[in-house]
Amino acid sequence: MSPALTRLITDFEAGKFAALARAVSIVENHRAGFDLLLAHLHPKIGRARRVGVTGPPGAGKSTLTTLLAKHARARGLTVGVLAVDPTSPFTGGALLGDRIRMEQVALDPGVFIRSMATRGSLGGLAAAAREAADVLDAFGFDLVLMETVGVGQSELDIARTADTTLVVLVPESGDSIQTLKAGLMEIADLYAVNKADRPGADRLRNEIELMLGLRMGATNNVPAHHGVDLRAIADRDALREAMQPAKAARAAAQRDDAEHWTPPVLGTIGAKDEGVVELLDALDRHFAYLERSGTLRSRRLSRLRERVVEIVEDRLKRRLWRDAATNAWLDAQLPRLETGGGTPFAVADELLAQSGELMTRGTA
Amino acid sequence: MSPALTRLITDFEAGKFAALARAVSIVENHRAGFDLLLAHLHPKIGRARRVGVTGPPGAGKSTLTTLLAKHARARGLTVGVLAVDPTSPFTGGALLGDRIRMEQVALDPGVFIRSMATRGSLGGLAAAAREAADVLDAFGFDLVLMETVGVGQSELDIARTADTTLVVLVPESGDSIQTLKAGLMEIADLYAVNKADRPGADRLRNEIELMLGLRMGATNNVPAHHGVDLRAIADRDALREAMQPAKAARAAAQRDDAEHWTPPVLGTIGAKDEGVVELLDALDRHFAYLERSGTLRSRRLSRLRERVVEIVEDRLKRRLWRDAATNAWLDAQLPRLETGGGTPFAVADELLAQSGELMTRGTA
Repeated sequence: MSPALTRLITDFEAGKFAALARAVSIVENHRAGFDLLLAHLHPKIGRARRVGVTGPPGAGKSTLTTLLAKHARARGLTVGVLAVDPTSPFTGGALLGDRIRMEQVALDPGVFIRSMATRGSLGGLAAAAREAADVLDAFGFDLVLMETVGVGQSELDIARTADTTLVVLVPESGDSIQTLKAGLMEIADLYAVNKADRPGADRLRNEIELMLGLRMGATNNVPAHHGVDLRAIADRDALREAMQPAKAARAAAQRDDAEHWTPPVLGTIGAKDEGVVELLDALDRHFAYLERSGTLRSRRLSRLRERVVEIVEDRLKRRLWRDAATNAWLDAQLPRLETGGGTPFAVADELLAQSGELMTRGTA
Repeated sequence: MSPALTRLITDFEAGKFAALARAVSIVENHRAGFDLLLAHLHPKIGRARRVGVTGPPGAGKSTLTTLLAKHARARGLTVGVLAVDPTSPFTGGALLGDRIRMEQVALDPGVFIRSMATRGSLGGLAAAAREAADVLDAFGFDLVLMETVGVGQSELDIARTADTTLVVLVPESGDSIQTLKAGLMEIADLYAVNKADRPGADRLRNEIELMLGLRMGATNNVPAHHGVDLRAIADRDALREAMQPAKAARAAAQRDDAEHWTPPVLGTIGAKDEGVVELLDALDRHFAYLERSGTLRSRRLSRLRERVVEIVEDRLKRRLWRDAATNAWLDAQLPRLETGGGTPFAVADELLAQSGELMTRGTA
């Protein structure tokens, strides 16, 4: 370990924010020594509660994250915030404005805020976010909030690295049922219907609860509303009517199964700081459930497993493609590939057959 | 090769669209035999011109793609269209509406249209799009249009697999200079300013040309406007004034260097089918430049290289993680990782050291 890295770790362990910021940079950009640093911090990882905050653009995720940090501080918790924006290049401008709102908590020494943008590929960003969260965890923050700014698969990937995933929706976010069908429902542990004072908020909450009720009902073999086509429920009264048995089924499911978690749907008004304390309470209840049911441990074990898988794949790639002879050999095959005298599959197999020693040797 | 696959290839080579559709599905989803199929088609790949169409949401990419297909047909070319949408889950609804517009060309037997959505990870989608384009190429289409629907890094990745990249912008797409700075300018071979009859279209064209002129100027050591802060040019007159020397520098750059391509900026009005024939002419000019300069060959060689790299990495991962003993060994390490008795890095190195034989053996 270099003297600079040793000094960094000493400062980090003394709780210096400058060292924390540098450590996150080193890890985020995979600078020299990042793996030594992470390996050193590894035994300190696992104390923090990690909450992912995701949802469509404009839902007010940044405001809610700021308020969650504020109220958690009021309860004596220290808070690390990672704001991750995978949507550049087209919408790269949004982040700065959001960050400014963070200033209301940024001067508090119990809060650390960090923005991250695209690193290399999107898969790389989810890995970088998890590693950065590891650093915040090792630093000793009680709560790590991982907020994603944009849309898409990478948000789901980032959310999956958290203990708890909060999905923020707003009445105007469009076809909410469509949204929920498309993968978000699988990862949501809590829902916040933000801007709850706007028209359509009740309807959105009802729709989410109906979806949840149907799912719970299905899980618990409650026959009510199997096969209901939600898209066919056009008006509000019909929706409300359809909702009642589903709600009952959901309540029954909650009563019947103490090991089961039904995602609550909470109304919030970020702009007025309303409903956020209740949201924090719900996060607490979810964490208690995670501990009680053993889900926390299984989620963390699978996160450790993914971590090893990523490192293995990363090292394999580096060993292969940083090898000059392998690259020269591959370049020499390109002309025959071009003329159809070989296929990429055959060339790949040849390359693999001759690179065994390269991939298993002890140096990265 | 299975009898079903042999039959598929026979039908594919006879030009049957049903076989083409099945071949794309097999390749897109990496179903059994996809690698045999791609290997078989490999010698037929390399005839089609591949054009990527990208840009922010709402720019009218789908309409322009449809019109490009229509006008290319009028010139006697056959056209394959791949519409790729990596933005699910949050905006998954947009695609269908766009597809309906495609119907005006969809009944033409010289046109094949295919939508693709997220497959696994986003990196996977770019690979899948390139493989699907390979299938269209091998089928014999003269022109393959690869349209991306959403925003982000994955669009850039997909665009990079094309011979020519067309970037579509609209006056209302916001801070255009910001957009251009953020990576798009590096990949654009042509710009279409669509909805060119709307306010701000001239300004957007001017801004793009100014950016291009500055870049050309820098490349050719023309001192004019080095270090001009475009954000400081607030009003239109100032912008126009600043533009003139840049334009001159650009014209000089074009005259001086026949091997160089300066991306043209064309106005189009998709809704009125205006400017699309000129856009197609510009695509022809770019293809002629690619052939003349040798860039076409170097782009295609690097695409073949990337193809081999992807296959190698994919096979390595499959060999490793489909091995039951490796997985069992990794699972057995998790408890000591959890208690800090080992680090993910050390476990990864151990795994690599013992998996050499696995990774180099001849079966995938």
